[in-house]
Amino acid sequence: MNLRTPGPTPCPPEILAALGRQMIDHRGPEAAAMITRLTAALQRAFQTRNDVVIVTASGTGGLEAAVANVISPGDKVLSVSIGVFGDRFAAIARAYGAEVMSLSSEPGHAADPGAVAEALAADPSIRAVLVTHNETSTSVTNPLADIARVVRESRDRDGSPLLLVDAVSSMASIPVLVDEWGLDVVVSGSQKGWMVPPGLAFLSISARAWKANARCTSPRYYFDAARHRDAAAKGQTPWTPALSLFFALDVALEMLEREGWDNVFSRHARVAEFTRRGVQELGLELLADQRFASNTVTAVRAPEGVDVSALRKLLRDEHGVVLAGGQGPLAGKIVRIGHLGLVAESDISEALSALGSALASLGFRPPARV
Amino acid sequence: MNLRTPGPTPCPPEILAALGRQMIDHRGPEAAAMITRLTAALQRAFQTRNDVVIVTASGTGGLEAAVANVISPGDKVLSVSIGVFGDRFAAIARAYGAEVMSLSSEPGHAADPGAVAEALAADPSIRAVLVTHNETSTSVTNPLADIARVVRESRDRDGSPLLLVDAVSSMASIPVLVDEWGLDVVVSGSQKGWMVPPGLAFLSISARAWKANARCTSPRYYFDAARHRDAAAKGQTPWTPALSLFFALDVALEMLEREGWDNVFSRHARVAEFTRRGVQELGLELLADQRFASNTVTAVRAPEGVDVSALRKLLRDEHGVVLAGGQGPLAGKIVRIGHLGLVAESDISEALSALGSALASLGFRPPARV
Repeated sequence: MNLRTPGPTPCPPEILAALGRQMIDHRGPEAAAMITRLTAALQRAFQTRNDVVIVTASGTGGLEAAVANVISPGDKVLSVSIGVFGDRFAAIARAYGAEVMSLSSEPGHAADPGAVAEALAADPSIRAVLVTHNETSTSVTNPLADIARVVRESRDRDGSPLLLVDAVSSMASIPVLVDEWGLDVVVSGSQKGWMVPPGLAFLSISARAWKANARCTSPRYYFDAARHRDAAAKGQTPWTPALSLFFALDVALEMLEREGWDNVFSRHARVAEFTRRGVQELGLELLADQRFASNTVTAVRAPEGVDVSALRKLLRDEHGVVLAGGQGPLAGKIVRIGHLGLVAESDISEALSALGSALASLGFRPPARV
Repeated sequence: MNLRTPGPTPCPPEILAALGRQMIDHRGPEAAAMITRLTAALQRAFQTRNDVVIVTASGTGGLEAAVANVISPGDKVLSVSIGVFGDRFAAIARAYGAEVMSLSSEPGHAADPGAVAEALAADPSIRAVLVTHNETSTSVTNPLADIARVVRESRDRDGSPLLLVDAVSSMASIPVLVDEWGLDVVVSGSQKGWMVPPGLAFLSISARAWKANARCTSPRYYFDAARHRDAAAKGQTPWTPALSLFFALDVALEMLEREGWDNVFSRHARVAEFTRRGVQELGLELLADQRFASNTVTAVRAPEGVDVSALRKLLRDEHGVVLAGGQGPLAGKIVRIGHLGLVAESDISEALSALGSALASLGFRPPARV
């Protein structure tokens, strides 16, 4: 199968082999050395000196950890949402009793840093801003550096508002400069650019966020960041970790650092560009505002009259290519091609060629070129 | 290494192989068939017709899911704790704002069902009882059937109090009759008798618990049981699951059902008895009240003058045997031998023989027999 969903990404053989390692004592010296090594490598990947913790949970669990650790019931929160995952981040904050104000964009569009600045200026009592760096549901990457700048410029002496970033599907594929941009809590998930199966989330936590954490009244135990930080200092996790995924992450980080982060980012940029060009050459339309096109996933508008379920089934059954469909308001309207983690141009060529012939067999004829 | 901690348990080769399977689309038909199959097999293992959900988290996450789904801030809760894991369950309830009353026992002793009955009779406003079935920190198995009976007998017309059971380290090794005993929320974890690496928790939820869930005001999102139940009905999980561990669980459940649950339980009972006898033959003392000795782990009192850290290091470095130490008030006072999941008498013979010679080299001489 050519698995071309935007996560889980296929895993290289070295990583699959690591998953099959026998269990070890998670409180023993071998685990301690590994957890210490992983924490340091994740800090390098996050480009941060902030604490980084690893929780056994999927990306959504990581987002909940971000909220539960720094947002208290009644806190005013600005949700900057450009799709399903932005809405999910806001829903979690709402579940924890935050008063959420929403700034949303049409599917395919990025957030406007100017509008964020205005919203923050209009209400200085906003305690946190939630933003999705890379919105997988629409294949748009937000201008995070610019959004972070306006949040920084609006900060009061208490360090408020905090900036909480869903970097689940960007980190390890697209540069995220945690320290340079002043990002307070940043979340990623193992099944994306890291090339590891799902089940681990990573969070970086700034000094400002730790201050908010100390006074945060939201209930938390499993996701309690302070317990994770304190355990990590001893080479442990507070609860039994998903050891197999830790073994895999250990190999993955070594592979990614051997490739070099800059090379990883440029490979993603190159393959993404190759994908977008190929889609257009098939006579298909891209959903995203191309100034903010994602380097990890590409959303393609389904041509008029093509049934997306039938298309995806045909691709899977006849061509061995798995694409994702649309979510929420985009269900039935787009297909999404994942190009993150273990990916090269050849995977995309194969997927696009399959897409072209599947569409043809469903009756689609590309518009004549001018 | 002969890993003899009370979890993670070593995994059989078939399960290690399954962990190395390539990723699949977690929303596709193959995943749906697997999730449906796993859910049904877990219901058989739990001996229940209640809903069973799988969350990507360790056992502690499962305990938090139990609390967050049915206990609201201000609820009165009776914690029946006989050790570290009982205390942890209570701490989670406290973190969620419950008013926790504690009924605790000396390390090594089981809970007294009569005392539970008295506590419930004394305060009819208690909404939930928290109990650890098998307390790993002291190697004691509580008389859960009797505790469940007194809880049932104290229930009012609204179904209160609920009985929440930490069966993390018992289920799949020791019989837990969820329906027959009327257990409302029961939690287990993959790294125990299931022979799967850590990272998955399983919860069964009774009709009474669903009623409490519907009016529960605790914040929850990642662990929201209703979302898990609704997704499972479609062969999905609400968030990306730890697929590798699902593959492993699929193989594990097939192996366990092939062995037959009764045989699995009797193997654990037999190996546990073998362990306890062997420990005593070494001239060592058992911690637990032997009427309630656990069939998954055995706590052994460290002989006077023996340094437990030195003993464990010697066992690991010179004999390739990993035992657990004591936790909380028992740190430095006991070693614990795990015998759950992948275990046979030969593993225990090897561990006990290593224990005997390591103790001898640390100067321990068994007391003369009478």
